[in-house]
Amino acid sequence: MKEIKIYSPATIANVSCGFDVLGLCLDNVGDEMIFRQSAERGLRIVEITGADLPLALEKNVAGVAGQALMEHLNPDFGIEMTIHKKIKAGSGIGSSAASAAGAVYGINALCGYPLSKKELIYYAMQGEALVSGAAHADNVAPALLGGFAFIRSYDPLDIVSIKAPEQLYATVIHPQIELKTIDSRSVLKQTVTLKQAITQCGNLGGLISALYTSDYDLLGRCLHDEFVEPKRSVLIPNFKELKDVAAKCGALGGGISGAGPSVFVLSKGKEVAECVAQAMKAIVANVDYACDIHVSPINQTGIRELI
Amino acid sequence: MKEIKIYSPATIANVSCGFDVLGLCLDNVGDEMIFRQSAERGLRIVEITGADLPLALEKNVAGVAGQALMEHLNPDFGIEMTIHKKIKAGSGIGSSAASAAGAVYGINALCGYPLSKKELIYYAMQGEALVSGAAHADNVAPALLGGFAFIRSYDPLDIVSIKAPEQLYATVIHPQIELKTIDSRSVLKQTVTLKQAITQCGNLGGLISALYTSDYDLLGRCLHDEFVEPKRSVLIPNFKELKDVAAKCGALGGGISGAGPSVFVLSKGKEVAECVAQAMKAIVANVDYACDIHVSPINQTGIRELI
Repeated sequence: MKEIKIYSPATIANVSCGFDVLGLCLDNVGDEMIFRQSAERGLRIVEITGADLPLALEKNVAGVAGQALMEHLNPDFGIEMTIHKKIKAGSGIGSSAASAAGAVYGINALCGYPLSKKELIYYAMQGEALVSGAAHADNVAPALLGGFAFIRSYDPLDIVSIKAPEQLYATVIHPQIELKTIDSRSVLKQTVTLKQAITQCGNLGGLISALYTSDYDLLGRCLHDEFVEPKRSVLIPNFKELKDVAAKCGALGGGISGAGPSVFVLSKGKEVAECVAQAMKAIVANVDYACDIHVSPINQTGIRELI
Repeated sequence: MKEIKIYSPATIANVSCGFDVLGLCLDNVGDEMIFRQSAERGLRIVEITGADLPLALEKNVAGVAGQALMEHLNPDFGIEMTIHKKIKAGSGIGSSAASAAGAVYGINALCGYPLSKKELIYYAMQGEALVSGAAHADNVAPALLGGFAFIRSYDPLDIVSIKAPEQLYATVIHPQIELKTIDSRSVLKQTVTLKQAITQCGNLGGLISALYTSDYDLLGRCLHDEFVEPKRSVLIPNFKELKDVAAKCGALGGGISGAGPSVFVLSKGKEVAECVAQAMKAIVANVDYACDIHVSPINQTGIRELI
């Protein structure tokens, strides 16, 4: 293969009670990336559209992740990468993860797929480290694997891939306000009560069970976060109103996407998810910032190759 | 039905990372209980063998649980209950839960099964409250339902029943030492770090996933408890040695059964579980207290009716 074009999807990390351990893959929001073999060895980013991002490898998440994999694979040809960003930076739906995961997927493909998708996660995480300071997997893993990705452990890296129930849809609203990750982190307490921890374990275990059994009601009952949402949601305008209208539409529940400011809601069926989108639109009709609203099924396979 | 004889099994609560949320059902350790219709209305415990326990309903877990259900069902006949205790009190493998769960099962059966097993859990929990002060479900739920019982929430009561992987075996050692529950509780810290809580969530979610996919390796990787074992295990003699020999036999892992003093180990296959039992026997060969060691498959259906 001399050239490949891929679709690298947006993702939701910190899925409510799955704070720091669970991410899911969206289907119809994502970047496009093109990879071409070149004679001169090494990796180059030749073009970026849709965002004002540096071409220099060491300053770009796709560059850092891609470079980490290039050093490992050491191909005897070069690779030129073009990135068409569609996911807005800072949106909280895995914009940097899509770049990092896409980079390693594309390079691995041009090299003849020597590594599995699971093995690629480690290299994609190196790109994430550039933006967040820590090599998180809860966006890059679902971007690569699709469905839900559960991070059991980072040391050693141990990731479980779980298919999403067939009729599960996500509605995501991205209010275009700046919410610095450092603010999002500073509101977190570093201890929790044993009671809170056990409640979170109950909801998380129930959520994992609901994914395997497609029990939508149980899934809805589990979408509560004890650790982060009570603190972080105050930074997000209209958070409670957005969740309330989603519940009125019959949605299963939701929470903060990643570190915010996006808010996600999960629903059984497209109709409910569309109702949530309309109701959210009404809530933000008069705010003085732009809002993007996406309705998407869960992407069960992750990054895909485009014809 | 005028008479029924049942087998009410022992159970393991607090399954490592499943502290306060997960229990499992053993197969070949359990009490026998006989229930007979009588003309005189009301519940009576007519005989108890194998343990020095009071016949007075209000002082007996089977009596309290049974009475709670009798008040709800209000049958127009009486019920006489005989209890043959085989599970030692204070062993940490659900002795009181077997009595409470058995009582409500037998009474429900004689009344024509008006309630489901899941509905019986609430009444069995009333018996548990007598001994532990709190109405725990993590022994009575697996005793009634079999397999693994996951307690998502107590308020409202929300329990998920999960089948055990087919080849899963438990080895349990019960050192006959007194370990007061109050001591077991007093060593617990009431707060945990966010990091510990996230680690526990990772292991618990992985364990639930492993049960659905029969992934024994993953199950083994998840059997770590951040919350309780580090504190409580110091009260149990030879705890580390018992876990170490189990690992040498190729066991998946283990922990404290309930609030102790019993220690449980899970293995893939009977052979490994028997090896663990032999190795444990060697560890306690020279201690000055008796030890019971049980090897058991997981009971997938809970309390059963005997011919």
